[in-house]
Amino acid sequence: MKILISNDDGISSIGIDKLVKELSKIGDVTVVAPLTEQSAAGHSITMKIPLRVKDYFVNSKFFGYAVDGTPADCIKMGIMNILKEKPDIVISGINNGSNAAINVIYSGTVSAAREAAIMNVPAIAISVASHTPKHYEYSAKLAAQLAKLVCEKKLQQGTLLNVNVPDLPEEEIKGILLTRQGVTRWNDYYEERVDPYGGKYYWLTGEMDMLDKELDRDVVALENGYASVTPVHFDFTDYDTFDSMKSWDLGSLKNS
Amino acid sequence: MKILISNDDGISSIGIDKLVKELSKIGDVTVVAPLTEQSAAGHSITMKIPLRVKDYFVNSKFFGYAVDGTPADCIKMGIMNILKEKPDIVISGINNGSNAAINVIYSGTVSAAREAAIMNVPAIAISVASHTPKHYEYSAKLAAQLAKLVCEKKLQQGTLLNVNVPDLPEEEIKGILLTRQGVTRWNDYYEERVDPYGGKYYWLTGEMDMLDKELDRDVVALENGYASVTPVHFDFTDYDTFDSMKSWDLGSLKNS
Repeated sequence: MKILISNDDGISSIGIDKLVKELSKIGDVTVVAPLTEQSAAGHSITMKIPLRVKDYFVNSKFFGYAVDGTPADCIKMGIMNILKEKPDIVISGINNGSNAAINVIYSGTVSAAREAAIMNVPAIAISVASHTPKHYEYSAKLAAQLAKLVCEKKLQQGTLLNVNVPDLPEEEIKGILLTRQGVTRWNDYYEERVDPYGGKYYWLTGEMDMLDKELDRDVVALENGYASVTPVHFDFTDYDTFDSMKSWDLGSLKNS
Repeated sequence: MKILISNDDGISSIGIDKLVKELSKIGDVTVVAPLTEQSAAGHSITMKIPLRVKDYFVNSKFFGYAVDGTPADCIKMGIMNILKEKPDIVISGINNGSNAAINVIYSGTVSAAREAAIMNVPAIAISVASHTPKHYEYSAKLAAQLAKLVCEKKLQQGTLLNVNVPDLPEEEIKGILLTRQGVTRWNDYYEERVDPYGGKYYWLTGEMDMLDKELDRDVVALENGYASVTPVHFDFTDYDTFDSMKSWDLGSLKNS
């Protein structure tokens, strides 16, 4: 199995190293990851400036390719320029911090997987639900299990699996649930501060406002000690609204 | 009508000025827009560094608030810190370049509108389908018409309208179609170049690979001379795959 690995915490982060070690047991791994942290990069890509690619060494041993761009850039660069043929799967992570509910939208980790899905390569984003995780091991193991399962079962083009794992030792994880993206969002605000020269600056902060209740929502599964697997697609059309808007008679605006 | 306007081309771009002039006829406009161009910013937000907000003047007249962040940052800042109450609608644009099909994912213009939708404020993203548009007038007019229509008809929370307009004079636009996001994507690659010091750098380029045929897909509507209106939601769950994955028996992975 040819596996391309990326992340959004940057190539030097511990999560990607744990993933590489585990996935090297089941396949031929190539790492293409951002040189610097890209958390909350969303699905941004670099177009107006060029990218550089740097061979990245750890203890004098080649570890992978570092790109001075976003997670989505890394996947484009990895598949189009670095690998000679399409990988069998892309895995993005292990992210420090949950990418459930609204965070799916902001996440660079998920965007790397989405970019692969757009390029018709099966993809998994994997995150552990703590900003200072103690337990990467089970996430790495689950990523390997799911990689094999995805290669066997196949996903339709454009679909990725967004996986979130509680920060617990394996024996305390209750199970694995198939989930939907929650609607839980941030109750956030800007903290106003003053710099040493009297200038105001604003720092985003806040807490998650738990709006989900059903166990098959990603955030609820996580809170209850389950690993969560959500299929995510890049067709953002709101089909319910599409149907209901047929009665709006948009065409009549044209000559009004 | 209280209207918050943003964009991704930056506060000094012509598209936002055209929008402000037209929408000022129907409501009370506040501009909160990125200080610098943020094309392809996707739905990135600024968390690890603080933001600054600058009063932005044109010919000694206050025009709006410039934020040194992304389009989504501008909406958060506008709604949470600058406006005293929620606006009735957020309009993002007028973008130079179509935001149809796959571009919905990369677009900062759409992300600004999506951030508003998340915050339960109705929102419209509007783009004209040329990188060097000649005709902003009809887009501005359509934005005003749709703003009124959206306030009357209402959208469900989380839904925004993504509007794309051909770069044509009004009389040559065939009509307005309700559409779905197309699956057309970029056939892109990195152009390899060498700097004056012998270092390689890579520049993303390419062309759209037209994969859509039906007239109710955004890109096809545009190519045929219609303005396109697509409802877009932030629930990215792939419900078809969600249903089919029920047979995967994920739970059995846990003890394997």
